[in-house]
Amino acid sequence: MSSDAQSDLIFKALADGRRRAILDMLKDAPRTTGELCEAFAGSLDRCTVMQHIGVLEKAELILSRREGRKRWNHLNAAPFRDIYDRWISGYAENAVALLARMKADMEAT
Amino acid sequence: MSSDAQSDLIFKALADGRRRAILDMLKDAPRTTGELCEAFAGSLDRCTVMQHIGVLEKAELILSRREGRKRWNHLNAAPFRDIYDRWISGYAENAVALLARMKADMEAT
Repeated sequence: MSSDAQSDLIFKALADGRRRAILDMLKDAPRTTGELCEAFAGSLDRCTVMQHIGVLEKAELILSRREGRKRWNHLNAAPFRDIYDRWISGYAENAVALLARMKADMEAT
Repeated sequence: MSSDAQSDLIFKALADGRRRAILDMLKDAPRTTGELCEAFAGSLDRCTVMQHIGVLEKAELILSRREGRKRWNHLNAAPFRDIYDRWISGYAENAVALLARMKADMEAT
């Protein structure tokens, strides 16, 4: 899959508040699918939660691992790091370079 | 607007490869709307580019500033930093805390 198609999957997956809420839950620690379903039991049925997990898994925002009858869902930090690297690292580096040039210009005058 | 509605706007804006390409162009330096239209002239007409810029502006991924007849578009780093803070900072902190606990456990045995 092209990186652009993968980016489409990632941002479409993130464009839903319930899926963002699932990722929020995984930030502190991995959770089983059962735990996630229970956490959203008040607002979403089990089938809907599992569909959202599926979308997040396809976008590789969640990595899952089976352990006996349990399925552990882990947040995948890599796509978030890629977003950061794509738009922020360079941006910050450019800002630093700009400040350095300004400083040099000021010192030269 | 709620932060969740704003997140919807941000991720829907990012879910389009052409809008991501516009943001890529703004990473190094701000560009005028005219420059952006010219850069995509081979693939997108002026009106489409301006619509995409509008979507990015509404999501606050682009901040624009008028200067005479020109309109300068700047990448807004804040939403990207928020994404990072929401899912990565805590995650990294937890990973570090986990490693520290593992180290302490190993040293205790």
